[in-house]
Amino acid sequence: MANTANTLTELQAQYEAVLKQNLKLDMSRGKPCTEQLGLSDELLFALKSKDDCKTEAGFDIRNYGLPDGVPELAKLFAELLGVPADNIILGGNSSLNMMYDTVCRAILFGTYGNCLPWKDQGKVKFICPVPGYDRHFSICQRCGIEMITVGMTGEGPDMDAVEELIKDPSVKGMWCVPKYSNPTGETYSEATVRRIATMKPAAPDFRVFWDMAYAIHDLDDTPDDLPNIFEMIKGTENKNLVYAFFSTSKITYPGAGIALMISSTDNIKHAKADIAFQTISPDKINQLRHMKYLQNADNVRVLMKKHADILKPKFDTVVRIFGEKLSDMENVHWTNPHGGYFVSLDVVPGTASRVCELCKNAGVVLTPAGSTFPYKNDPEDKNLRIAPSYPTVEELEKAMEVLCLCVRIAALEKA
Amino acid sequence: MANTANTLTELQAQYEAVLKQNLKLDMSRGKPCTEQLGLSDELLFALKSKDDCKTEAGFDIRNYGLPDGVPELAKLFAELLGVPADNIILGGNSSLNMMYDTVCRAILFGTYGNCLPWKDQGKVKFICPVPGYDRHFSICQRCGIEMITVGMTGEGPDMDAVEELIKDPSVKGMWCVPKYSNPTGETYSEATVRRIATMKPAAPDFRVFWDMAYAIHDLDDTPDDLPNIFEMIKGTENKNLVYAFFSTSKITYPGAGIALMISSTDNIKHAKADIAFQTISPDKINQLRHMKYLQNADNVRVLMKKHADILKPKFDTVVRIFGEKLSDMENVHWTNPHGGYFVSLDVVPGTASRVCELCKNAGVVLTPAGSTFPYKNDPEDKNLRIAPSYPTVEELEKAMEVLCLCVRIAALEKA
Repeated sequence: MANTANTLTELQAQYEAVLKQNLKLDMSRGKPCTEQLGLSDELLFALKSKDDCKTEAGFDIRNYGLPDGVPELAKLFAELLGVPADNIILGGNSSLNMMYDTVCRAILFGTYGNCLPWKDQGKVKFICPVPGYDRHFSICQRCGIEMITVGMTGEGPDMDAVEELIKDPSVKGMWCVPKYSNPTGETYSEATVRRIATMKPAAPDFRVFWDMAYAIHDLDDTPDDLPNIFEMIKGTENKNLVYAFFSTSKITYPGAGIALMISSTDNIKHAKADIAFQTISPDKINQLRHMKYLQNADNVRVLMKKHADILKPKFDTVVRIFGEKLSDMENVHWTNPHGGYFVSLDVVPGTASRVCELCKNAGVVLTPAGSTFPYKNDPEDKNLRIAPSYPTVEELEKAMEVLCLCVRIAALEKA
Repeated sequence: MANTANTLTELQAQYEAVLKQNLKLDMSRGKPCTEQLGLSDELLFALKSKDDCKTEAGFDIRNYGLPDGVPELAKLFAELLGVPADNIILGGNSSLNMMYDTVCRAILFGTYGNCLPWKDQGKVKFICPVPGYDRHFSICQRCGIEMITVGMTGEGPDMDAVEELIKDPSVKGMWCVPKYSNPTGETYSEATVRRIATMKPAAPDFRVFWDMAYAIHDLDDTPDDLPNIFEMIKGTENKNLVYAFFSTSKITYPGAGIALMISSTDNIKHAKADIAFQTISPDKINQLRHMKYLQNADNVRVLMKKHADILKPKFDTVVRIFGEKLSDMENVHWTNPHGGYFVSLDVVPGTASRVCELCKNAGVVLTPAGSTFPYKNDPEDKNLRIAPSYPTVEELEKAMEVLCLCVRIAALEKA
């Protein structure tokens, strides 16, 4: 509580001193650090000759064909994620792209089940738990989908609110990051997942967009456990409710990994029929390279442990400094997640934008305030997403100290 | 003309003998052969260590970022294709995907120039020169775009017909494969390209989809020359008329190459703004791998010469056997292209489907009759697309002899 006695003037003097250090720290995105990238450099050489360019069934992946991609890689992901391989579509390098395409296909052509395309159904709305992932919200915004926010509770979205909203048949979808949610780091509880799995949306073409971005991205030895929603919906009238997405962007190389989509047999068949109009096949070379490098689900888990070893001290640093510098402040709260890529920091309401501005001027770039809300509009102007992965622990210490200073200054400026 | 005296009965006896050979030859797609794939196996090892994973400007391509991709690769393509690097969008592995996405964006959001999205403009129509590429037509069909055919003339589409059709403001686009057109192999003449470049479509959001799939895919020493349409439209009121597409699928590895889109400054800026909603970046690892392997435009041209050396004897075989076996037949014509991947064969009208069926039953799979027309409907049922690249010369000789036999049988059956 060293700072509690400081006046605004004293804090501003400290800030002036920081300005002179000409810091340049970018914490705006959940970017793996260089050491993490180095964990997967064997991927570069995983195909050692043309003789390595065949699938187990003997298909030469250098050529056209095999629109479903490398079957054994689908099997690896199936084991890793606890879903049938047949319910996976292997894609290119971007799960965001698969989400965007899935939304666009629903708008242009409709979902499985002979529903009208969303473009012919008037206003379409999505439920957006907040704070959430800016790129999910951007897809909706670009596509003219109205976003309705519901709060996060610590065990997932406020399901009372969700269950009310889905009575409206124009509500067609809901974004979820069910494990280590971006940015709060919370994992949906069994009760929350069950309420989602058994929800009764008025719209027959309502879909849950289940972004498993951090499904295996644990940080410590007490990881959260996410119930398997596909087990819950199997055989029920909600069997086609969920489109799930995953990628190896934060397992192997960011933006050069393998993305995939998981859904029901009906939804997968329906999506594949449309994807056939769009492309001849995904990049099977990168898929087989991943298969040869990762080999099996256990190896992936070992790799994730190495990521955790690099990331954990960084998360610890953030949480420690927040504890040291901010624990005396009313209305300031942060998360301490067991996995994922973010710490969520709520500062004094009405000051998040100012904190960001102060940080930026001092050379510490954060994700812009508001980014975790639809239309980049945080109604209380209080949430900040902290991305500890990229800087070194030393840089992070410096950046967090600057951030904490700015949080206090902005609070006093407003008081 | 050995066959001219044969009766249907005699030909059928020959066909029965062929059936007993249990042939299994697939010529349905323009697939490079295994020898061609082998030309680019150095691509597998083009990144030799993590130290190779930086762009010239020092960006670590293993991480997120660089949404425009590897700049030096754009420069290589710029030199190869005679366009400014800034007018290129580097994509993933599929130019078809870029075409599909471009059509979908126009439908959902509209083109550059504040025009309404096509979805809000009622019926939308595309001009489709025929015979043409089935996957172009499939995109239109899936998107509910009405297709209007115009004939090919030997120097590109019938521009009198095109100029008439574009008076209709609901005509929004036109598919073109201007060099070594799929399947006729013809290259648009200077006069045709100039008429396209100076066309006056009624729709301000009319766009020419210029698929440069075979832009550098010459077969012999007298290649066709395609005028640079971007030079012609530069600075004119048609400057935003053209979306061009290209890929290395038939240069390096099919389906694991690099696709790109070329267009005006306005169109590129407009498209990039939308692509930013869709993905964080293309697979830069594969881009840099291509850059390190291809190195410069001259090397690409040397590589294309090696492809030609493999392909030319195959095309020669097709054309030679057609000459030997079909030259006496009225109403049977074929092309003899200087590049590309196809020979177009027109059989006796009304018999193309039957020829395909006879071939298939004899184990020779051709691209299905009708595929080169919208809605898979060849009104004269006469065009067949021959893809000589994949089989060996020996297999090709056998397949072409079977094909010629089937052409004659079908003609006599109908007579």
